[in-house]
Amino acid sequence: MRYVRFRDAAGDVRTGEWTGEEGAEIAPSPGTGERLNLDPEPLAAADVDVLPPCDPSKVVCVGLNYADHAAEQGKDIPDRPLLFLKPPNTVTAHGETVDLPAGKERIDHEAELAVVVGERARDVDADEAMDHVAGFTCVNDLSNRDDQVVEQNWVRGKAFDDACPLGPVVATPDEVPADATVECRVNGETRQASSREEFIFSVPELLAEITTYVTLEPGDVVSTGTPAGVGPLADGDTVEIEVEGVGTLRNGVSIP
Amino acid sequence: MRYVRFRDAAGDVRTGEWTGEEGAEIAPSPGTGERLNLDPEPLAAADVDVLPPCDPSKVVCVGLNYADHAAEQGKDIPDRPLLFLKPPNTVTAHGETVDLPAGKERIDHEAELAVVVGERARDVDADEAMDHVAGFTCVNDLSNRDDQVVEQNWVRGKAFDDACPLGPVVATPDEVPADATVECRVNGETRQASSREEFIFSVPELLAEITTYVTLEPGDVVSTGTPAGVGPLADGDTVEIEVEGVGTLRNGVSIP
Repeated sequence: MRYVRFRDAAGDVRTGEWTGEEGAEIAPSPGTGERLNLDPEPLAAADVDVLPPCDPSKVVCVGLNYADHAAEQGKDIPDRPLLFLKPPNTVTAHGETVDLPAGKERIDHEAELAVVVGERARDVDADEAMDHVAGFTCVNDLSNRDDQVVEQNWVRGKAFDDACPLGPVVATPDEVPADATVECRVNGETRQASSREEFIFSVPELLAEITTYVTLEPGDVVSTGTPAGVGPLADGDTVEIEVEGVGTLRNGVSIP
Repeated sequence: MRYVRFRDAAGDVRTGEWTGEEGAEIAPSPGTGERLNLDPEPLAAADVDVLPPCDPSKVVCVGLNYADHAAEQGKDIPDRPLLFLKPPNTVTAHGETVDLPAGKERIDHEAELAVVVGERARDVDADEAMDHVAGFTCVNDLSNRDDQVVEQNWVRGKAFDDACPLGPVVATPDEVPADATVECRVNGETRQASSREEFIFSVPELLAEITTYVTLEPGDVVSTGTPAGVGPLADGDTVEIEVEGVGTLRNGVSIP
């Protein structure tokens, strides 16, 4: 199942199942309570505003989790996950045009498979970590290299508004194979192409390490790092992040 | 005015004015809507659970904002603010015992004056920044040095659960003088004592720089850095952060 959150033409925020090729159609979930009367008929995805599929209190990101990306950045493979944070101001939806910071030399795409937390996770062991996972989604870990390379903590570099396009759906774990492909295309041209098999740290290992320090709440996101091929974006680009089994997160790019 | 948020004996979350010496008494705000019937009589602060005075979506912290602390850390004075993040899992209230990570050699107190955002702030100029401020509070920027000194981004070092005791009140800006003292006491002994006059970057300068990149929402917190005198905490300690005009944030310390 692939779950989508959307705002319908009447302005109601609803959830549904994302069906058809690239979610051409949405089968709304049954309403509850006062929302029971919402129309249960399938909707064309093009007729609604797709929202981020969850509402994270934080996005915990992992750096250098593919050996090929570590090599292109000239970094050693870390002995434990490199972590950083994206707060809620960074989250934006599939279909939105992202407004990137002005006056920077280089802002890069980074295609990532991301974990959506289903149940609170605190100090979990790797072998029970997947019990806390609702599913997977796509993240574009937008990175302002001008500032990232000169600051200790990547706040200007990674936590600027719109720096975390997220979606379009949460796909349940059974939908996403162990060797799922992770790709980025810019204006239709493939820039990054790798697989979850190339991870240095697995999803359960990441969740065990993070939750030793940081409690993850339902809806929180852990983004698992990007493969080789990161590169700059320009005003007017269309950037797509595709994770096999999830689908494609598509955003326009605006740079003032 | 000093505003406090609290849970009363009946379990209702309410706000009120913090009155008397160290807030010995709370004058509840008039209720609204269905809460109009809540008892408006003054309450003894000791009889209620004080909550964090706001509910931040993020805490944006500033490093090295006092020249004396930069010197004790052996760092140059930065040419722009050093920023880092504490997500909502870090926030805990006045009066709570903080549970610190186990097995670390050194976890330090850091006394800070913190800004509570009142109105959304995005790309604000310094000269209008204070229009977006609800008031000031105290933060104890708890810091796990074992990990902070070896990680790029301070997640294990600064974003662990309970790493941001916050409170006890939001004091309106008129309550806090330009040369307000900022102090830390551990078990009654003064460890840090400085003043807002020693800031390298002023509050308006910090808000202008942060909001160039990161939109601040109502309830968000900007913590303005700590003066010299940071030092380790031990299991069983009582740590107090006092900002002149705000009051004293007091927490017990538990280390497994």
